[in-house]
Amino acid sequence: MYRSHNCGELREAHQNTEVTLSGWVQTVRDKGFVIWADLRDRYGITQLIFDEERSSKEIMDTAKSLGREFVVQVKGTVLERSSKNPNIPTGNVEVLVSEIKILNKSITPPFTIEDQTDGGEDLRMKYRYLDIRRNPVKNNLIFRHKVAMEVRKYLSDQDFIEVETPYLIKSTPEGARDFVVPSRMNQGQFYALPQSPQTFKQLLMVGGMDKYFQIVKCFRDEDLRADRQPEFTQIDCEMAFVEQEDILNVFEGLTKHLLQEIKGITVDKFPRLTYEEAMRKYGNDKPDIRFGMEFGELNAVAQHKDFGIFNEAELVVGIAVPGIASYTRKQLDALVDWVRRPQVGAKGMVYVKYNEDGSFKSTVDKFFDQEDLAKWAEATGAKPGDLICVLSGDANKTRAQLSALRMEMAERLKLRNKEEFAPLWVVDFPLLELDEETGRYHAMHHPFTSPKPGQMELLDTDPGAVKANAYDLVLNGNEIGGGSIRIHDKQIQSTMFKHLGFTPEEAKAQFGFLMDAFQYGAPPHGGLAFGLDRLVAILGGQETIRDFIAFPKNNSGRDVMIDAPAAIDQEQLNELSLKLDLKA
Amino acid sequence: MYRSHNCGELREAHQNTEVTLSGWVQTVRDKGFVIWADLRDRYGITQLIFDEERSSKEIMDTAKSLGREFVVQVKGTVLERSSKNPNIPTGNVEVLVSEIKILNKSITPPFTIEDQTDGGEDLRMKYRYLDIRRNPVKNNLIFRHKVAMEVRKYLSDQDFIEVETPYLIKSTPEGARDFVVPSRMNQGQFYALPQSPQTFKQLLMVGGMDKYFQIVKCFRDEDLRADRQPEFTQIDCEMAFVEQEDILNVFEGLTKHLLQEIKGITVDKFPRLTYEEAMRKYGNDKPDIRFGMEFGELNAVAQHKDFGIFNEAELVVGIAVPGIASYTRKQLDALVDWVRRPQVGAKGMVYVKYNEDGSFKSTVDKFFDQEDLAKWAEATGAKPGDLICVLSGDANKTRAQLSALRMEMAERLKLRNKEEFAPLWVVDFPLLELDEETGRYHAMHHPFTSPKPGQMELLDTDPGAVKANAYDLVLNGNEIGGGSIRIHDKQIQSTMFKHLGFTPEEAKAQFGFLMDAFQYGAPPHGGLAFGLDRLVAILGGQETIRDFIAFPKNNSGRDVMIDAPAAIDQEQLNELSLKLDLKA
Repeated sequence: MYRSHNCGELREAHQNTEVTLSGWVQTVRDKGFVIWADLRDRYGITQLIFDEERSSKEIMDTAKSLGREFVVQVKGTVLERSSKNPNIPTGNVEVLVSEIKILNKSITPPFTIEDQTDGGEDLRMKYRYLDIRRNPVKNNLIFRHKVAMEVRKYLSDQDFIEVETPYLIKSTPEGARDFVVPSRMNQGQFYALPQSPQTFKQLLMVGGMDKYFQIVKCFRDEDLRADRQPEFTQIDCEMAFVEQEDILNVFEGLTKHLLQEIKGITVDKFPRLTYEEAMRKYGNDKPDIRFGMEFGELNAVAQHKDFGIFNEAELVVGIAVPGIASYTRKQLDALVDWVRRPQVGAKGMVYVKYNEDGSFKSTVDKFFDQEDLAKWAEATGAKPGDLICVLSGDANKTRAQLSALRMEMAERLKLRNKEEFAPLWVVDFPLLELDEETGRYHAMHHPFTSPKPGQMELLDTDPGAVKANAYDLVLNGNEIGGGSIRIHDKQIQSTMFKHLGFTPEEAKAQFGFLMDAFQYGAPPHGGLAFGLDRLVAILGGQETIRDFIAFPKNNSGRDVMIDAPAAIDQEQLNELSLKLDLKA
Repeated sequence: MYRSHNCGELREAHQNTEVTLSGWVQTVRDKGFVIWADLRDRYGITQLIFDEERSSKEIMDTAKSLGREFVVQVKGTVLERSSKNPNIPTGNVEVLVSEIKILNKSITPPFTIEDQTDGGEDLRMKYRYLDIRRNPVKNNLIFRHKVAMEVRKYLSDQDFIEVETPYLIKSTPEGARDFVVPSRMNQGQFYALPQSPQTFKQLLMVGGMDKYFQIVKCFRDEDLRADRQPEFTQIDCEMAFVEQEDILNVFEGLTKHLLQEIKGITVDKFPRLTYEEAMRKYGNDKPDIRFGMEFGELNAVAQHKDFGIFNEAELVVGIAVPGIASYTRKQLDALVDWVRRPQVGAKGMVYVKYNEDGSFKSTVDKFFDQEDLAKWAEATGAKPGDLICVLSGDANKTRAQLSALRMEMAERLKLRNKEEFAPLWVVDFPLLELDEETGRYHAMHHPFTSPKPGQMELLDTDPGAVKANAYDLVLNGNEIGGGSIRIHDKQIQSTMFKHLGFTPEEAKAQFGFLMDAFQYGAPPHGGLAFGLDRLVAILGGQETIRDFIAFPKNNSGRDVMIDAPAAIDQEQLNELSLKLDLKA
C-alpha cells in the first residue's frame, strides 16, 4: 500500500499517528541540520520534516538528494508544527519522516509547477501532463467533471435517458466541413465523424425514447479561430411531445440547478428577448446583460439637422458609457481610433460628454444644440458624468460596431463581474439567413428547424422574414446553448430542403432515412444542445475553453504533445485504397 | 402542452379527472358502436374508449380512421374499466375520449411493434427507429443508461474524476488496426481514432490526476466477428500510487455495487484464479463458474495401458457432464461429431458412462478396466449418472477443445442460469504471447504492462514464462474487464519496447511523448477497463451486445439505416489531398 492518507487530509487530530504518504516533491528547504520538504498530490500539500537529531543519516542524505517533482513515499509521525501555515488546510501539522523511498526521480521540469508558472502556453501544451499538475489546470478539470455529473444527475432525475449515438456516420456536405474516416472494408467509401448527433436524436424521438440526452464529442473540420477546437463536447438533448415553452422550462431548470449546485447562486426566472429585441437593444444575439448601456436609437432626434452623415444613415444609434465624461481628449481620440480599427469597422464616432453640471459637449455642437443633445441623453438613458457614443450607417453593421464598443467599454470599466451570472433566452430567431457571397439562403440553425406556425407561405415571398421556433440560451455574453422545435412532417421537411437548394435527389441521398422515418408516426419534438466546453468555462468565471480541456489542440488542429496528426504507413494507405495527392 | 400525464401513469386514483395524453396507436378494436384503442408511449399503454352514446360522430369517425402507429393527442376523462387488465399497471382504468387530434399519420410499419415482432434482424436494423419503439430494445437502452449512471455515481463518490481524452490522436501500427482521419490542415497527415485512451490515462497519472475514469467510445478497424462492433464503449479507469491489490478491491467494489443496485444481488468476495489455474481447471481464461464440470487431468491414470492415442498425447483431460450417462448411442455419436467439427477441432472423443448402478461403460473398454475408469471418475469428480468426456493431444489445443465442449454442454443442460452472477478475477497473466505465424512475441495485454517484480531478467531467457501484473474480471464466462499495473520507469519501458521488436527510433516516434513524460516523476500506476457493451448485456441476462446498442453496425461495418459508409464528393477528396486507389 503506497499511502495511508493523501497529502491534503492530515490535521491536528492526526497528531502522533503513524502515516504513509506518497506524492511529488514540490519544494525542499535545506537548512543543513533540518530539512523541510513539501509533498504534493491532487488533494493538497503536506510538510515533511527531517532533522539531524531525530532522523538517521541515511534519511538525511536521501532528503538532501531530493529534487523538484521527485516521486517519493514516506512513513512518519504527524506532529504539530511550531510555525503554522494558515493558508493551507494541512498547515498546522508536519510529518517527521522515519522512512523514505524514492519511487521515481525527475529531471528538471521545463517550467515551474506553481499556480503562477514561468511556462508560456506553447511549452505548457507540449508538456500538458506537467501543466495538469498545476492547481489552476487540475482544478478546471475537476470542475468540469462536477458540472458534467450534475448535468447527468439532473437530467436523469427528470427521466431523460442518455443514449450513445454512433461516431462513424455519413458525410453530409451541408453545414460545416466533416472529418471523414476511410472504410477499409467498404472500398472507396467513407464514414464521417458527427458534427452533432442531430439526426440520431430525432430518430430516437421517432423511436419513442421521449426524453434523450447525451454528453458527446462532436467534430468540425473548420479553419480554427482562436478558442475553437476541432473536437468539442455537447450536452445534446431532445424531447418528444413538446412545444417551445416546455423545452425552455426544462433547460432553464437545468441551468438554475447548475448555478445553484455549482456556484451557490439562485437565479429567478430567466428574461426572454426576441432576436429582434436583442439586436435592437444590444446589437447582438448573445447580449451580456450584467450591465446596462442599452442602445438608444436616435434617428428621430438626430436626423432633423444639417448633419449629412446622420441624415444619410439608415440608423443612428448610441450608448451611454457610464462615468467617463471626464475622459481627456487623448483618451477620446483613442476611442475613436478603436472603433475605426478594421476589426470593428466604423467610419467614425460622434460623442457627447454629459457633464456633471448637466451641460453637454459634443463633437457635433455645430449641428446640435443642448436641447437636441438632451434628447439623445434621454434616448440612451445617459446620466450626468456619462459619455454618449453614437455610430451611424447601415443598420446591421452599425449595430454590430456599437455592440463591439459596448463590450469593449464593459471590459475596460470592469463591468463584466465574474461572480455575477445573468442568463437569458433569445427566442424567435429568423429561420433563414442570407449568404451575401452566394446570394443563397441557408438555415440559420439547421435544416430541421420548424418555422413558426403559419409562416410557411412566407418562404416563397419573403424568406428572410420567416421566424423559427428556435432559441438560444445566453449566459454573460456567450451562447451556451441553442435549439429548436423540429419539423416532424415529411412534406414540410421536403419543402424546407427545396428552399435550401437541395434537389429531391440530394435530399433523398443525404436525409432519406430521416424523411422515411417521418412516415411512420413521428411525434412533435424539439431539443437543445449546450456547448459543454464553453458552459464550464463560463461557470468557472473564464472565457477560454482550452483551459477546461485536458488535451486541447492548437490553432492548426495539432496536438503538440503527441505530435498528431502525423504521416501513416504506405501499407495503411494501401489497405484503405487511398493515395496521397499532395499539392506543391 | 401535449399531455398532462404519460401513458403509463393513470390509476384508479385518477378516476373522473380530465387528462390529456399523447402517444402512438398500438391497436384499435372497432366493435362498431364502441371502439377501444391502446395508446402507447415510452412509459406504458393506456386504453382509450370511444362509444356512440358518449362520443360525437366526428370523434367516432376519427377513431375509426386510426391506423397502427398513428400519433394522436386525446383529451378525456379517466374511468374505471369494466373488464380490468391485471397485466399492465394502467389496466384498471380507461380514458373516455372527448377530443382527439391526429398529430401525425403513419404508413403501415414494415414489422409489428410488439415484444415478439415478425421482423427479421435485417429489417429491424434498417428501421431501427421503429425497432426502438419495441419494449425489449427500448428497455435495453434504458437499462444501459442506468448501468452507466451507477458506474459514474460510484466512481465519482470514490473521488474518481471523469476526464475527456481526445478522439483525434495519432496512429500506432501496433495492436489492432486504427481507423484514421485525414487532416485537411496538415496535408498528407492523419489522425487516428483511439483504440483506447491508454496513453492519455497514463499521462493523466503522470499529471497527478490520481484517480481517473471515463465512459468513452473506442474504435478498432478489425474484420468483424459476430458481435464485434467497429466502435464500442469502455469504462476506462486508472489510479496512481496503487498496487494490483488496490485496483482489484476498487473494481470489485464497483462490480458488487452494480450487482446490488441493478440486479439486487449481493455477492461476497470474488474468487481469484491465476491464469494457469484457470487454464488447467477450465481450459479457458474466462471461465463460467456458475456450474462445475471442472477439468480432471488424466495423464497419470490413462497413460499406463496400450491405448496409443493417450500415450502419445501431451495431455489427457476429461470432464464429468452431469446426468447424461443415459444418452443414447445416437446422441453420443452426435456429441463426438460435435467435437470433431472444424470450429472445435478435436480428432475424436473417448467417453465413459458412469451408470447409476456404479458400473462404467466406455468406448475404450478394450484398454481400460473398471478400476481404471473409477480413477477417471475420481479425477473428474463424476457421480453415477454422469458422462465422462475425455479429449487428448497437444495440451493447449486440447484444453481449448474441452472448454468448448464444457460450454456447449452447459448450454444444452441449461446450467447457465441468467439470474445467477458469478464474477471472478483471473490474475497473473503471461506478459507475452507467441504469435505462431511470425514467431514473434507480442504483449498479451499491451506494451505498457508491468512484469511481475523480479521477472525482467527472464525476458531474455524465457520470454513466454514472464508473468505480468495483469488481471481480468470475468463474469459468467465473459471477460468484462481487464487491466494491469503499468510500467512507470522510462528504462523498463524502453527494454519492453525492444523485446516487442520496436527499434529505438520506432519507439521514440510512436511513444516518445510517453517515455519523455516518465522522466518527470511518473508515479506507480495501474488501471482497468470494462467493456460497457458486454457488461450491460451480461447484467441484462443476454450475451449479444448489439441488442444493447442504439444504432449498431452490421458485420460489414455498415449502418444499414443511414447507409454508411458512403462515397464522398471529389471536392472533399481534393481538400484532403487524397485520391482513391481502387483495386479491381
